[in-house]
Amino acid sequence: MCADQGAWRPNYAARRAALRDLLVEAGADALLVTDLINIRYLTGFTGSNAALLVHSWDGIEERTMICTDGRYATQVGEQVPDLRAEIARACARRLVELAGEWQVGRIGFESHVVTVDQHRALLEQAGGLQLVPAPGLVEQLRMVKDPYEVGRLRAACAAADAGLAALLDRGGLRPGRTEREVARELEWLMFEHGAEAVSFETIVAAGANSAVPHHRPTDAVLATGDFVKFDFGAVVGGYHSDMTRTFVLGAAADWQRDVYALVYEAQRAGRESLRPGVPCAEVDSAARTVIERAGHGDLFVHGLGHGVGLQIHEAPGIAKTGTGTLLGGVAVTVEPGVYFPGRGGVRIEDTLVVREGGPELLTLTSKDLTVVD
Amino acid sequence: MCADQGAWRPNYAARRAALRDLLVEAGADALLVTDLINIRYLTGFTGSNAALLVHSWDGIEERTMICTDGRYATQVGEQVPDLRAEIARACARRLVELAGEWQVGRIGFESHVVTVDQHRALLEQAGGLQLVPAPGLVEQLRMVKDPYEVGRLRAACAAADAGLAALLDRGGLRPGRTEREVARELEWLMFEHGAEAVSFETIVAAGANSAVPHHRPTDAVLATGDFVKFDFGAVVGGYHSDMTRTFVLGAAADWQRDVYALVYEAQRAGRESLRPGVPCAEVDSAARTVIERAGHGDLFVHGLGHGVGLQIHEAPGIAKTGTGTLLGGVAVTVEPGVYFPGRGGVRIEDTLVVREGGPELLTLTSKDLTVVD
Repeated sequence: MCADQGAWRPNYAARRAALRDLLVEAGADALLVTDLINIRYLTGFTGSNAALLVHSWDGIEERTMICTDGRYATQVGEQVPDLRAEIARACARRLVELAGEWQVGRIGFESHVVTVDQHRALLEQAGGLQLVPAPGLVEQLRMVKDPYEVGRLRAACAAADAGLAALLDRGGLRPGRTEREVARELEWLMFEHGAEAVSFETIVAAGANSAVPHHRPTDAVLATGDFVKFDFGAVVGGYHSDMTRTFVLGAAADWQRDVYALVYEAQRAGRESLRPGVPCAEVDSAARTVIERAGHGDLFVHGLGHGVGLQIHEAPGIAKTGTGTLLGGVAVTVEPGVYFPGRGGVRIEDTLVVREGGPELLTLTSKDLTVVD
Repeated sequence: MCADQGAWRPNYAARRAALRDLLVEAGADALLVTDLINIRYLTGFTGSNAALLVHSWDGIEERTMICTDGRYATQVGEQVPDLRAEIARACARRLVELAGEWQVGRIGFESHVVTVDQHRALLEQAGGLQLVPAPGLVEQLRMVKDPYEVGRLRAACAAADAGLAALLDRGGLRPGRTEREVARELEWLMFEHGAEAVSFETIVAAGANSAVPHHRPTDAVLATGDFVKFDFGAVVGGYHSDMTRTFVLGAAADWQRDVYALVYEAQRAGRESLRPGVPCAEVDSAARTVIERAGHGDLFVHGLGHGVGLQIHEAPGIAKTGTGTLLGGVAVTVEPGVYFPGRGGVRIEDTLVVREGGPELLTLTSKDLTVVD
């Protein structure tokens, strides 16, 4: 990977400027951001209680204001030196109050995040202000990763690749161990290789358990002849990797080779369909058709993939019902699976970035059928 | 710990029966439960997409129904054998649709969890049904832990106690190591001692960083003379422990002994005030008064504690602004702190269960000032 490793610092002001364009389109004078991940994206703040008010007119960037509570008074100054910070417990209400003083007319709010009860409390505070639903604006920006973000995603995927390689190198995947032991060791190895956290609880699913798409590791013991499915990821700089690989312990039976080859082909078809301008539903269809033609469409019981970034699941959804169209710079997973209940299943998943000349693969572990002796 | 270790299995039907009583009080014919933790509490289901409809009349328990999507079709049958399961992607909408067919009149919904956008979608589906806000009903039940839950909380606290003891035994806390290394090792040791997950990202904060209430571990190196603050917990059976201990590396300075003694006294006062019938705000006040009398009220910048269980933070809040009154069986933390910005801080925290004869302490690690040489 001698290519661009990404910018060293996020340009938060540029992200807020991009949001302003969407606010103008939405006809709002300001956006009240209450989703903590969106606040992190727009400011760098990582505390657990905050709200942010971004104005649509860049002439009043000095009124763009973050609010958090007393626990984070020091932290907000360090992480967000470029914005005014207000300290209050009820952050969103406090910002609506200030917006009232400044006579902001129409404030957009994140109606996909704000609860019915929170909305009622904001309405009580709003007075003459108009609160208008403005769902998903920051998520729309977050779909397209900037160079800084791609750099972090690469590093996260590299930590996961290195963790799995180390597990295999040291013989950590072998009959007689439990799913839980193997999962714990893989997580430990990802930390050793630079992960700051795991993207989600590592899935290790052996034998019949591999047919459960989202199996949680148990004390089930790995045995010769098992499929062993790993679905796992590492977090670096807040960005999540996501990868699934399925191995066979000992010799692979014919049915295992067949189902593996089928999922492999479906996954390749999905990856190869990733281009700017392609509808998300078409990507799902490219992979699903391969499995349906083999007569196993009913065994592929989930969507093909999802966006990935500051959250493990984010926009866009890559599914039959997926809406919208891919853009260059969007980071997604491609993860078809075929599951024979009671017997075993295979899923193969990569994290990729959509590019004009074909997708950039971030999870580099081999996808060839690997038989572990 | 020769006492009752708790029941072996949760009695989900009994929990749903208790919810029915609250529904009757709230004047609702059914509750649409969409919070996943609440669904786990009422059914045992642990998947990532579900809704549950509980009827207020126990004569129609056969119409109490859980809905999840295709990924969890196998899992829901295993985890919730006693309820009918419906498979659909839009779980809440599907259950509202079924409620319409059954002509349920008034359906309560979790207005503290349902977003403005989700609410609009449910209204579209509701037809002649009335959707009424019914916030916090399951959370109210969850405050009082049943014997099964106390058993899991004990096990979670024991895993955290054992992890910390092992860290100290092996000399893991010493000058020259980074906060991050120590945090990672403590997490690993909790897993070794029975944790299935960590309650939250382990806080290890050394020197001036100990004055940041919610510091994230960095590459800062531990040095002689530092306060080192640990805030951490283990998850067992879905239940979270929460404990803070603050150590001194090398000899303690007089100011360190003074602030430690002050926080110790405040924490003891908080613990000793825990009784059924005591207002939550009074518990906060018992500890806060000790710190205020010493002239440091402005350095105790957060609430005294919070409920703990299937979530790390749940009802009741123990703060100045806390409402409500303690009941027997409620599990809470007591965690005063005094923080000198730029210099260092101390927090001491236990997890306890409120009991008639005085609280049951679950985090058993000593709270005496421990100087680690």
